[in-house]
This record gives sequence, C-alpha cells and structure tokens, in this order.
Amino acid sequence: MKAVSYEGGGRFALRAAEPRAPADGEVRLDVAYCGICGTDLHIAHGAMDHRVAVPQVIGHEMSGRVAELGAGVEGFQIGDPVVVRPLDARGETPADKGFSHISRNLRFLGIDTPGAFQASWTVPAFTLHRLPPRVDLAIAALTEPLAVACHDVRRALLRPGELAVVIGGGPIGLLVALVAAHAGARVVVSEVNLARRSLAGELGLDVVDPESVDLHEHVAGLTDGAGADVVFEVSGSPAGAREMTRLASLRGRIVLVAIFPEPQPISLFDFFWKELELRGARVYEPEDYDRAIGLIAAGDLPLGKLITSIEPLDRLPEVFEEQSREASAMKILVDCQA
Amino acid sequence: MKAVSYEGGGRFALRAAEPRAPADGEVRLDVAYCGICGTDLHIAHGAMDHRVAVPQVIGHEMSGRVAELGAGVEGFQIGDPVVVRPLDARGETPADKGFSHISRNLRFLGIDTPGAFQASWTVPAFTLHRLPPRVDLAIAALTEPLAVACHDVRRALLRPGELAVVIGGGPIGLLVALVAAHAGARVVVSEVNLARRSLAGELGLDVVDPESVDLHEHVAGLTDGAGADVVFEVSGSPAGAREMTRLASLRGRIVLVAIFPEPQPISLFDFFWKELELRGARVYEPEDYDRAIGLIAAGDLPLGKLITSIEPLDRLPEVFEEQSREASAMKILVDCQA
Repeated sequence: MKAVSYEGGGRFALRAAEPRAPADGEVRLDVAYCGICGTDLHIAHGAMDHRVAVPQVIGHEMSGRVAELGAGVEGFQIGDPVVVRPLDARGETPADKGFSHISRNLRFLGIDTPGAFQASWTVPAFTLHRLPPRVDLAIAALTEPLAVACHDVRRALLRPGELAVVIGGGPIGLLVALVAAHAGARVVVSEVNLARRSLAGELGLDVVDPESVDLHEHVAGLTDGAGADVVFEVSGSPAGAREMTRLASLRGRIVLVAIFPEPQPISLFDFFWKELELRGARVYEPEDYDRAIGLIAAGDLPLGKLITSIEPLDRLPEVFEEQSREASAMKILVDCQA
Repeated sequence: MKAVSYEGGGRFALRAAEPRAPADGEVRLDVAYCGICGTDLHIAHGAMDHRVAVPQVIGHEMSGRVAELGAGVEGFQIGDPVVVRPLDARGETPADKGFSHISRNLRFLGIDTPGAFQASWTVPAFTLHRLPPRVDLAIAALTEPLAVACHDVRRALLRPGELAVVIGGGPIGLLVALVAAHAGARVVVSEVNLARRSLAGELGLDVVDPESVDLHEHVAGLTDGAGADVVFEVSGSPAGAREMTRLASLRGRIVLVAIFPEPQPISLFDFFWKELELRGARVYEPEDYDRAIGLIAAGDLPLGKLITSIEPLDRLPEVFEEQSREASAMKILVDCQA
C-alpha cells in the first residue's frame, strides 16, 4: 500500500508499506480521506522536528472504514464508517485532575505516533467514533477540526442571541463561526485576507476587514454599545491578542484557541475593569466529537465549501511543498486510496 | 464637625464642616471608623487628581450609625449600626448587561462623590447594609475590603479541598486568604515583605517568600504535582503576572484582583495548553456584603489582627504623609469621632 512519510527537515516521501495487523484492542482502518491541518504544515516547516520521530507517517483529520478487528474489540463491524479521535490518554495520572484530553502524557496520533496519510491505518479501538451509514466520507474528514470548533464554542458557554466575534477566518475560525451561528449566536468574523473574507461571505457570515473597518465600532453598533459577549481569538496574531480584551463587553468571555508561542502584552486592566474571562481551549473531548458528527449527519452546515481541493495521496509531498510556499488554501483533503 | 478633605497635589487638610441634612431617599450617618484603602493612598500620591474634584472628603471603608433619615427612607431606625456599599449605579444602561457593580457610569462614593473621613456622612439609603446589633464597629469597618475578598473568592468558584495560591499578602491578599481558607481551601500566600509574612503566619496561613523558596515546587509538593486549582493575583507585580499561569493546574482558575495599569507579557500558551481560566474581579455585589457581614458577625476570622492602629481624624493628614513615605501598615482605621 501507499504511505507518505515525513522524513525530517521539511521533506516528505511516498513509500510502499505493509498494512499493520491490529493487536489486541486495535482496529485497522482503510483511510478514505485525511485533511491537512495547520499542525501538519507546522511539521512540514520543520518546526516540530524535536517531537516527530522520523521517518513517520503523519495526518490525523481522517475518515475511513473498519477493515480488520483486533482481538477483544467489540461494537464494530468490518465496513463501518468511522473517524478517529486522535488522542491517547493512557498515560493519564491523578495530577491531570480528570482532564484526559489535555493530560500531561497525552500522545497525539499522527504526531507522537504514526498517522493517517496512508491507505491503511491501525489505531486503538477507543479512538473510534462511528459515523452514520450513508455519510459523505469527504465531509466526514472535517470531523476533527469541527470537533475543535464544537469544543471552543462549548468552552465559550455561548447562549443564543449573544454576539460572538471570531478573530481569524482560517479553517478553525470559520468552523467556530459556523458552529456559533448554528447555536444561535450573531457572529462577526474578522479576517485580513481577502480570499478568506470572500469565503466567509459565501458561508453567509458577517465578515469585516479589521484593516479597513473599525471592528470595535462595528461591534458597538451591533450591540448598542455593549461590546461582544464572546470573543474567539483564533488568529494567533499580536493584533488579535491586543483587540480581544477591547472588543469584549462587561463580563465578556474570551476563548483562546490560537497557539501563541511567545508571551503577549495583555491588558490585565481590561480583565479587572470589565470582569472579563479568558478561557483556554485545546483539542476536544468525546462529546465534542459526538456533537460534530451530529452536525455533519444533519447536514445543516455548508461544510463542503470549506474543501479547497481533494488531492491523491501520491501528490501529497508536492502539496506540502506548495502549501509551505503559500498557505492559501482553506482545507485540502487527501484521498488516501488514490 | 471635623472633616479631612483632599486638596489636590497629595495634600490633605483638617476642616470644620456642617453635617449635610439628608435629602429624599438619603440617610445621614455618624461615622464610627473609616479605614485607609490602597485607593486612598493612590489619591494621596496625587495619582488620581484627574478624577477627584477637590477639595473633597475621601474615604469609603467605614462603619457607623444612622443619625438622621431623609424623607421616604424605610427600614432603618436612628442608631442602627450600618456600613455603606459605596457604589452608585443609578447611571446604569442596558449596555451594562445587568452588571450594576461594574457599570460604565458607576460612581464610587468617596472618590467620585464625598466620602467618610468626616464625623458625619450623608449617603443614599440604597447603599446601606445593616450590621448585627452588638457588632464591634472597628472590626465592621473592615466590611468593605472583606466584601472585596468575598467577591474574589466567589469569582474563583472555589471548592472545599482545593489548593489556592494568593500572590501578594497585603490587606486584600490576606483577607482573600482568610476567606478562601474559611471556605475549606488549602491556602498558600506568596509575599516578599517580611513584616507581611510574619502577620500572615500569625493568622495561621502557610506563607512563603518567593525570593527564597521555589513557589512552583512548593505548590507541586502540596498537590502531587498537579499545581494550584486557583491562583489569586493580588500583587500587581510583573512577577505575579508571570507566575500565575505557571502555578495553575490543568483547568486552573486565576482570579485577577490587582490593578495593572500597563499591559503585561502573559503566557497565552499556558492558557491554551492547560485550558486555564482567567477571571477578572472588581469590587463586590450586594451578596458579597451580606457574606462579609455574616463572617464578621460569626467572629470566625482573626480580623482584629489586621488592624495596625486606630488614629484620630485630627491626625489623618499626618498619617497620609507617613504612609506615602512608606506604606508599611496593614490596615489603619481612623476614628472619625475623635
């Protein structure tokens, strides 16, 4: 079978590999589609070479079908459509206080262990979530980032009718915006990139360019001066870190989704004065996957518009090179059987 | 009667004044004691001259007795012991979302309007909270800062058995520590000043000098490596802003009590990675006053130890000068009838 492995130093290689038979408690999957995540691009930039043991297949935003069951696995049949929640929390300790999904010894499938950019992937059965029978497996490959968005919205304690600002209209930002709008919020997306703004508009979202529109005034106008009930910082930009406290209303909740490697100057005065709340959000819990699969099954969200292209697995090394030069795409899926 | 007024430029003057008769809905109080707050010292440093309309009596941490009732005031009798919750939220608008205590047009009695460093103080009746009949009015003058602490602990969503770190052992920090311990938390106070550490020890608190002890290690040792469930940042120091995210456990709550005039470099990565929560806390709501009065009535907290001295009103201008040179005191009360 085909597999694309990361070789270190930003290089990928198409290799021939043998499917790995499932051990006790494991399941072998035929991978249908696997999306390219921002983290995968980060790896492709060589920025995670300290963590990824090369050569290694990466990829974790997948959909597929059960191909082979290891001993002791119950509740799944060959051919079942599934997605993987790529978290292995078996190293959890009491110091993690029950927060398995962010536990200190967490292993992330596709980063710390082999991933899904291959025709066949063998994983622990506890990572599986079953999909509805007639689901579109291309759309289902968005389950993982959609579960991130569901987690973020849940962390926001968002209530219907509230105004939410999403700073950053990349794949996660737009999914957060769609989930928040579906939950009954009024949503404003702030995005500097024209192509991303265009797509946000196509998705039916209120989107502004913060470099030409005063976002603070825009939000004030929508809220009779109160400000945003919720702000999602998804941009990872210093401007986002600066504006998030300014945009929030009294007791506004700010959900921190983006990864900021370096400390940022933050207005703690705004936190004091307006009694703001900042809530970090990382990956997802099982219920976020259930929610994401429910949204996909219901078909209410225009998720297909987020798929920029579907590329054959053969071409993945080139695609990583293209995206490393200019990450203009929204979501690229890889057809792992092609 | 005697009154001490702030004259601007860091100067105070003892003046003779006439008690102001209460208008409709107002009550005139005989002030028993009024504590000197950090904000009062800030005013005494000339740092709030843009806000205080001089000459003006300041002071808001008071206790006293009802002396005269304006028309339409019900529920109080002459001689009733009371404290004032010094917030006038009559300028509240819908944009304040119901958060009266931090509403945008909030007027703070003793800063934006005349205060309690005088023998007689006339205030709106809605600011009053009744004290139990035989309360010690000196201890009761701590109601306002104790209500701040009750608000901070309530904002922390603190549960019995949790470990709370209080960064900064000044008057508010020690009150937060006492209230948190009374609520069933294990409490560690971090304080650089030796005199304050000694007092914290006398209060029965676990106190460390973060310049000689590794606070992070100390907390890890107390929590089997988990870290602090709750961190109260009360120091207003860059070190506190830096350490608060480091000390917190997974999903730890950080309550921001201190006022940081300037943006601080904050590890947003810690917020993401550990799904931390930062919750701003400012002043108090009516239930925090009720809680503080209940604690004073029960007599469970060693509040008397926090009172450094009781000074006559005559001497207040000198006391402000002394404290402006070196704010070594914990809580100085002013006897407004002396």
